[in-house]
Formats: sequence, structure tokens, C-alpha cells
Amino acid sequence: MNGKPLVSIVSAGLSKFGKHEGLFAREIFSLAVKEAFDRCPKLDPKRDIKALFIGHMGESYEHQGHMGAAAADWAGLLGIPATRTEAACASSGAALRSGVYAVLSGLADVVMVGGVEKMTHRTTAEVTEYLAMASDYPFEQFHGITFPGLFALMATAHMNAYGTTQEQMAKVAVKNHHHASLNPKAHMQKEITVENVLASKMVAWPLKIYDCSLITDGASCIILTKPEIAGKFTDMPVHIVGSGQASDTIGLYERKTLTSLQSAKLAAKTAYEMAAVKPEDVNLAEVHDCFTFAEIMAYEDLGFCKVGEGGKLVVEGKTALGGRLPVNTSGGLKAKGHPVGATGVAQAYEMYLQLTGQADKRQVKDAQVGLTHNVGGSGATATVHVYRSDQA
Amino acid sequence: MNGKPLVSIVSAGLSKFGKHEGLFAREIFSLAVKEAFDRCPKLDPKRDIKALFIGHMGESYEHQGHMGAAAADWAGLLGIPATRTEAACASSGAALRSGVYAVLSGLADVVMVGGVEKMTHRTTAEVTEYLAMASDYPFEQFHGITFPGLFALMATAHMNAYGTTQEQMAKVAVKNHHHASLNPKAHMQKEITVENVLASKMVAWPLKIYDCSLITDGASCIILTKPEIAGKFTDMPVHIVGSGQASDTIGLYERKTLTSLQSAKLAAKTAYEMAAVKPEDVNLAEVHDCFTFAEIMAYEDLGFCKVGEGGKLVVEGKTALGGRLPVNTSGGLKAKGHPVGATGVAQAYEMYLQLTGQADKRQVKDAQVGLTHNVGGSGATATVHVYRSDQA
Repeated sequence: MNGKPLVSIVSAGLSKFGKHEGLFAREIFSLAVKEAFDRCPKLDPKRDIKALFIGHMGESYEHQGHMGAAAADWAGLLGIPATRTEAACASSGAALRSGVYAVLSGLADVVMVGGVEKMTHRTTAEVTEYLAMASDYPFEQFHGITFPGLFALMATAHMNAYGTTQEQMAKVAVKNHHHASLNPKAHMQKEITVENVLASKMVAWPLKIYDCSLITDGASCIILTKPEIAGKFTDMPVHIVGSGQASDTIGLYERKTLTSLQSAKLAAKTAYEMAAVKPEDVNLAEVHDCFTFAEIMAYEDLGFCKVGEGGKLVVEGKTALGGRLPVNTSGGLKAKGHPVGATGVAQAYEMYLQLTGQADKRQVKDAQVGLTHNVGGSGATATVHVYRSDQA
Repeated sequence: MNGKPLVSIVSAGLSKFGKHEGLFAREIFSLAVKEAFDRCPKLDPKRDIKALFIGHMGESYEHQGHMGAAAADWAGLLGIPATRTEAACASSGAALRSGVYAVLSGLADVVMVGGVEKMTHRTTAEVTEYLAMASDYPFEQFHGITFPGLFALMATAHMNAYGTTQEQMAKVAVKNHHHASLNPKAHMQKEITVENVLASKMVAWPLKIYDCSLITDGASCIILTKPEIAGKFTDMPVHIVGSGQASDTIGLYERKTLTSLQSAKLAAKTAYEMAAVKPEDVNLAEVHDCFTFAEIMAYEDLGFCKVGEGGKLVVEGKTALGGRLPVNTSGGLKAKGHPVGATGVAQAYEMYLQLTGQADKRQVKDAQVGLTHNVGGSGATATVHVYRSDQA
């Protein structure tokens, strides 16, 4: 509870996000792993890595469960303890949290955490059905309310309570597409306008197709160690100084409010306290913009602005590159893409790049404190991590 | 690496194994949780429990993912970090391992680990298909070799190498059915004979229907704490003194041998070393008898006998109640039942009962050191834990 490093990231890898035709999830994961190994020549994978936690949301996509063992083998790590974690779209946020526990436990001094999902070979109807399994299936799917509908309910409640507008939501999409245009690994690298968003096909009012994140294939991984040995592997570690995870009711119908996520607020509180960091200390963040509205809600849940003022924050440009607190410099789930199991650690990958000065065209200058916010389902799970660079 | 307690079990719960018509998995889990809470009145669940890890193998059974959050809510633990772990049939062995990491990390001093599966509402064909997702689906299921077939290959190789017989395998079933007849929570509580097994319907030669474990509904949970605070909650803690987890190739076709599981041998080596225990020190064990042959292979992988002599061990009665090393006093997966995600922690539940003298008609006398062995798929994951009671 003092801001000291819990664990240190010594390397990171990310596959291109997009269609990976002809590759299995385990193969896509190996692309991310290869980058992480290539970045860190002082690491001997077989000797050093003591455990793998991999976020993978749906065994339905490939009819493939048991992804921990499969991924460990394809990563060249045969034999190590390998566990799949699943917490819907926060599956690899939970993997990251599990990796933090493992390193702190003293049983594993170097741990790989990652995530993967292969989605694009399925039809939109199939993907919608598989994602719906992360909701309260017997009670919510009985009514046919899939995820765009659940987030539309939250957006509508927020519009009603605070006057949030569709234009404000569209601004999130425009910003994140701009950021993605600077990220060669993003699924979509084209700029869009507010008009494009507003004119796009309605999915669940007020959310249109350009308010929704992308169905994508992709994988992510990072390598965690004890801070005191990070120097053995790299001169540029990024430290995780706060880690929070929390749960909420799986059904939206049981919540006291629809305009914020209790899980995210609770996870943020834990992570901030552990990190001895306040929201105003955060220099950049990757937040869970599964829908544009979700980013607006995230600003408020994370304390980046007052409740009800999230829409204003994006319109004022404060969360764009060049603003006071750039959010989703990677392009976010919205434009980089959302291979669901990979997303939480993909956020950590972006933080690693940014805090080590390797983010190229989208580099945030002088950033020292970063935050990632990963949400599962309609908020039944949230993980928040706070990062700090060694660079002065 | 000195036999000191890593973590302590202060309570445990198990639902009846069998058909739970009309209940969702999360509700079955709450039955196990209630027993654990009732057993431990000094524990205040809302105040004390800091995290949940729940093994759950298949989202397909109920079209329900995100079981961590759902289970936490139904357990009365809303808000805590809750993560589903999946490693096929070792899903809750992996949950237990994750709980050990979490307690040792210092971030969570009291943790619930558990597992659940609801299977009986599905047809045998559906269950076979869902279980097959734990194999190397694209390569093994292309040939149509489901789990009985994979284990039949191993059994056949073992018969060829060591002369293991169908009668020896049948003896495992007879023993475990006898044990289950003494366990009111077992799915099947009837005794059977070697003749019953040999005459039963062929599934995949040499495995007949009575060589196979049971499709069952059920849930398990245990509560772990730091050893130094266990006394706050109970006068009879059971300590986990060794924890091993390991992986192997997901596909059987990649292995150098079919007559043993490298993952189990590796996990056992780790756990034994940590516990400072040798196989001959173990007083009782719960092993992963998904098929009768698997129990014979487990004896060998765990060092309970020489390689090739597993069949002899069961025929000599050494692993029956009253023998030198009773194995699967609960009835095992074979007769207690195998609700896949629940099995690993159900084994730990039996160990808790036995080492605290609460196993009633199936109590092993003077047992001090126990072991559990949980296998995922055809052995791509294995977890081994070693337990020690405080009782002199």
C-alpha cells in the first residue's frame, strides 16, 4: 500500500490484430510469444519461465478448451504449470492478476501471462451467441438481450441521468480510430468522422455499428518477474504498482445503478490505494471501450472526471493523444480490435510500449504512470492495474 | 522445500454428487459453499474471504461462461475478485493451485477455491462432444477419438508393455464402488463385482462402461488461509505442504510414451520435494480415476509402486480401505462421480475429512499425510497436492 513495485514487466508481445486465416488460437498466441522472446534476449524461456496464465474466453469458437496446456506447448514452454483463466472479456485481466499472485507467492519468479481469441472464422450470429454466454444466460438471454443491448441499457440510463449524447459517444470512436491509425498492429487503421458514426447502422439504440468494438483474432503476452531480479532481463522494466480485481452481479437486472460499474470502481480503489496513486496522477490509460459508451463510463468509474462529465471529457480532447490524459492510444477495443481473451494483456502491452518509449507515432511524452481497465461481460468482473516506469 | 505448511484448509464443503434437476451450476455450487460456511462459524464470509477461484470446465453445458462472478454472487461473496480456472478435468486442481499462489502472495489472506459442473441435463453424445474439447480438437477429433478412446490407447500400451489385465482394471472399479457405498454423497452407492465390470458394455476396448467414471452434477469448495491465522477459524486445520502443477502436450500423438503421464510425474516430483515427503510416507490418496486404467497408471506415476506393477497393487488390496495406502476412499471419479470442474477440489474435500477424522464409515485410521492427483484431459495438465494434519 505504498506504491512499491509488486512485479515488473520485462518483455511483451502482441500479434497483429485482425483476421488470421488458417491459424489456430494457439498459433496466434505463439506470434505474441515470439515477439516477447525476441525483445528479451537475456531471457531463456525454458530455463526461466515458471508458469503461464492465459486468458481465453470461449472454447466454443474452435471447439477447443484446455488452452493453457495447448498454448504452453506452442510457446515452447512444455512442462510448466499452465492455466486458462476466464472472466469473459476480462479473461486476460484475470490472467494478469493471477500472474501477480504467482510472482508474489514466491513459487514462481518469472511468469508469462497472456491471452488469445480466434473469432473471425465464425459468423456474427455465432460470435454474438458465444459472447452472450458471459451474460446471465438463463435470465438475460431468455429475453434475447445480447451485449449491445445490455450496454445500450446502460447508455440510455446515462443519457437520461446526465444528458450524455450520441455525438459524445461518436467522439470516442473518432478518437480511437485516430489512435489506431498510428498503430500498425490495429485491426482498423482508418480515420472516421462523427458523421460516419452517427450515420452507421443501428445495432441497439443508441449504439450503432461504429459504437461497437471489433470482432478480431489476436493474442497478447507479457513476462512478469520479481522487481529485484528484473534487471537480469532488461534495463527498462515497467513496474506494476497496483492491482485490483472485483466482481458484481452477473445479471444487469440485479444492480442498483446502470450508470456506473461497481466492479470497476472497487477494482480501481484497490489498485489506486496499493499504488499510492490518485486519478490525477495517471498520465495515460487503456480502458475497456467494448462500446463507445463504455469508455465514457470508464472515465467516471476511474475518477478521471466527475460523474456525468465523461462525455464532456472526450469532446474537450483531454483523452486524445496530446491531451492531458490520453486514453486508448492503441486504438482501444474499438479500433485496435477486441479478441476478447487477449484484450486485458493487450492493454498491458500498450502500457509497456508507452512507458518504455517504444510507442512510435503514438508515443505519449514523459509518461510515468499508466493504468489499464479491463471489464468482463456487462461488468460482473473488472480488473484495474497501475504501472510505473523507472525512467525519470 | 522443507515440509512447512504453505497454506491451511480451515473448512470444506461438497454438494451431493448425482442429478441436481432444476438447479443451475451456480446453485449447486452454493450447496457446497453452505456446508463450508456451516462448518466454520468463526468465519465471516463477507468480511474474511478475499478471493474466489472456481474450476469450471465447460461453458457449453449451460451456455454459461463467466462462472467466477456468477458463483461469487450466489455464494454471498459479491464484490470479491472471482476467477474461473479451466484446465479440462483438472480445472479445480488449477483453482486450488491458484488459491495457493493467492494466499502466499500476501494479497489475500483467506481464499475460497472450488469447482462445479452441471452435466446430467445433457445427452451422453453432447457430454462426449463437450469433453472432447479438452483433447487436441483439430487433430484428435478429426479422427473421432473421444476420451474413452484416448485412455484405451494408453491402457492397451500398458497391457502390452507390462501385462496389465482387464481383471486388474475391474478391481479398481470394484474397490471404488465399495468405497462409494460408504460415502452418502457419492453418485453411485452400490457394490459391484469383477464379473459385473467384465460383462458390461464395451466402450473402447479394453474399457467397458464400468471402467468409466460417471457423468454427474456436483460442486466442491474449500477455504484456505495463511497457516499462522488458521487458528482463528478452526482447531483442526489441514495443511497443504506441497503443490505441483505441470503440463504436457495436449495431443497424445506427440508423446514419447503412452504408459505414463509426464505431467503427473513432474507435478508429483515438485509436490513431494516441497512437502519433504516420499511416496512411502503417504497414508492415503485421491487419484484421478477417470477410467479404471488411469488409477493404475496414477499409482506408478506417483511412485506408490514400481512401474508396471500398478495392476498388482490393486489386486493385492493395498489401495483398498484397510490396506497400506487406501486410494479413493471417497469412491473416486469412478463411483462418487466426476462433475469435471468440481473434481480436483472434491479430492481436497475428502482429504480434509479424512485428516480431521470426519470421514465416518470410510475413515482411514491414524492418517497424517494425504495426496491428491488431478488430471486434465489425457494428461496435458496435472496437479498434485500433499496434505498434512496437525493431529499427532
